[in-house]
Amino acid sequence: MKPTELELPIVLAPLAGGSAAVPLAVAVSEAGGLGFLAAGYLTAGDVRAQVETFRARSNRPFGVNVFAPPAGPPEPYEAFVASLLDEEARAGVALGEPRSDDDDWAAKLDVLAELAPPVVSFAFGCPAASVLERLQAAGSATWVTVTTPAEAGQAEAAGARALVVQGAEAGGHRAAFDDRGEEPYGLLALLQLVGAATDLPLVAAGGIATGRGVAGALAAGADAAQIGTAFLRCPEAGTSEVHRAAIASAAPTALTRAFSGKLARGVVNRFMREHADAPSAYPEIHHVTSPLRKAARASGDPDLVNLWAGQAHALAVAEPAGDVARRLAAEAREAASRLARRLGS
Amino acid sequence: MKPTELELPIVLAPLAGGSAAVPLAVAVSEAGGLGFLAAGYLTAGDVRAQVETFRARSNRPFGVNVFAPPAGPPEPYEAFVASLLDEEARAGVALGEPRSDDDDWAAKLDVLAELAPPVVSFAFGCPAASVLERLQAAGSATWVTVTTPAEAGQAEAAGARALVVQGAEAGGHRAAFDDRGEEPYGLLALLQLVGAATDLPLVAAGGIATGRGVAGALAAGADAAQIGTAFLRCPEAGTSEVHRAAIASAAPTALTRAFSGKLARGVVNRFMREHADAPSAYPEIHHVTSPLRKAARASGDPDLVNLWAGQAHALAVAEPAGDVARRLAAEAREAASRLARRLGS
Repeated sequence: MKPTELELPIVLAPLAGGSAAVPLAVAVSEAGGLGFLAAGYLTAGDVRAQVETFRARSNRPFGVNVFAPPAGPPEPYEAFVASLLDEEARAGVALGEPRSDDDDWAAKLDVLAELAPPVVSFAFGCPAASVLERLQAAGSATWVTVTTPAEAGQAEAAGARALVVQGAEAGGHRAAFDDRGEEPYGLLALLQLVGAATDLPLVAAGGIATGRGVAGALAAGADAAQIGTAFLRCPEAGTSEVHRAAIASAAPTALTRAFSGKLARGVVNRFMREHADAPSAYPEIHHVTSPLRKAARASGDPDLVNLWAGQAHALAVAEPAGDVARRLAAEAREAASRLARRLGS
Repeated sequence: MKPTELELPIVLAPLAGGSAAVPLAVAVSEAGGLGFLAAGYLTAGDVRAQVETFRARSNRPFGVNVFAPPAGPPEPYEAFVASLLDEEARAGVALGEPRSDDDDWAAKLDVLAELAPPVVSFAFGCPAASVLERLQAAGSATWVTVTTPAEAGQAEAAGARALVVQGAEAGGHRAAFDDRGEEPYGLLALLQLVGAATDLPLVAAGGIATGRGVAGALAAGADAAQIGTAFLRCPEAGTSEVHRAAIASAAPTALTRAFSGKLARGVVNRFMREHADAPSAYPEIHHVTSPLRKAARASGDPDLVNLWAGQAHALAVAEPAGDVARRLAAEAREAASRLARRLGS
């Protein structure tokens, strides 16, 4: 499955954490885009169940995204966790235990090698060439998410068949191999840099919420646009009410490590402002704050929830996911026609 | 002068500080783009001389960019200046005096109202509606550089005739009205947000160094692309040798206040790394570090010079400026054709 083979140049971003379960992915694939299941935070058994459920509902292509395991030890996090005790008292919810894990990595690879979804993509690192080869041999195209030109070079060297190029604008976790690496690149700059260095197909991600954005990313060298936030208001999405309200607002976003110990973009709220000193310690901090976030989602407290959102979140529309995909593709065609007229080409 | 009236959709970024004096602006305008003179740091008399020199060499349209005066008091800067005494000793060059000024604002407006260049643009703030009206009445189109959706709204309300939409990728100073405002927006996200809220013509700025980048920005809603770094290696540019070498490298960039007290993007060097704690205090810090930077430019010390560069700097080519402008426009037409084929439009 190549990005250029899609009927619509629209790829659903893998929205780990429940926002994008099977119904949203099915809707995007059925519309002619590429639905994506997010294996992050799930057990290997849950991933199997999601893939099987998808296939029971649709015979269109889809992808599964997997978190690469942590590449190195976390920064010291004890003092930061201690600083969250006030939050514990305030919310009346016990903090989780800081612990490391590899998100069921080996078992997930076994399941994916067996089920062979059309696309398997990776975030937070580039797997060894042998891992990519195994999945390719099973019948999956392997895509690796990159955030710098250097990461793109590594992914190509490891044998990735396409690169998901994630700009600084993106909502949710940055896919960077090293959370403390280079300052984030804007999508348009990164597409030009990566496109100049590789002939691999590129999927653009980050802050794309309109057909103009899709057309802009494709004109800059991408073959498809990966879109997350613009689908979060869809009825098929598992987005909480408090999260939907934040996305529909014009509130600013920022990058933070406060919720998970890994840089992620969300709508700015009290928890982000007051815990801006969070260390790079994923998934340890993720596990610590998880009970707080769960309780706040249930109670509808916007100041304690991770309100993941890309920079263009205010442009998301509450409509069925298939309509979003078709509308963005149609708007992109209009933008392409306008561009051709402007340039006389 | 509207952005859509340009023969090529290429606008030279106003490169204050000497890199872009008259020859570079003339070359871009003569090629069919819009050359820009940078009034920043100059006296009103120097601005007059540059405009007259441009007009003696070319009858093509051009613009002049002006720095809006500081909107508020600086953050305390005494401790930061004291921390630079080591640099003074190390370089054997006396630091400058921290002082505020308005960059000869009123006198420059008088000169521009008299000379009426086709375009007058502003950075670091939005002038009062009466200022824009005066220049419009004299015959200039007024463009205001914006970095957030809110700034775009302010500029439109003040009567700007076009918006220069500057993304986080841009090299040199950010044009933000408030240096401590929102986290920078990536260009593609900002173009979508601003484009959804206004019908004013938009000029996209930030990290555009290839024709694909130009096409991407235009597809996303811009009417022209403003380009700085990609012209810095041209023979017509006044770029120092040490700066040219940094631009030609693949070194990462970052935003810093270390050199001027205002956020600006440059290739990361020792001075930026060691003085990351600089306050928001412009132009005070600019005047303090000015002698250090001047001496380092002359001696070729890359660790003490402000190596302003956008995120796509590695894609800049050493060729005459007219060739750059024509090449980017031709590449943009190719990218538009590729986009139309991809989308079947």
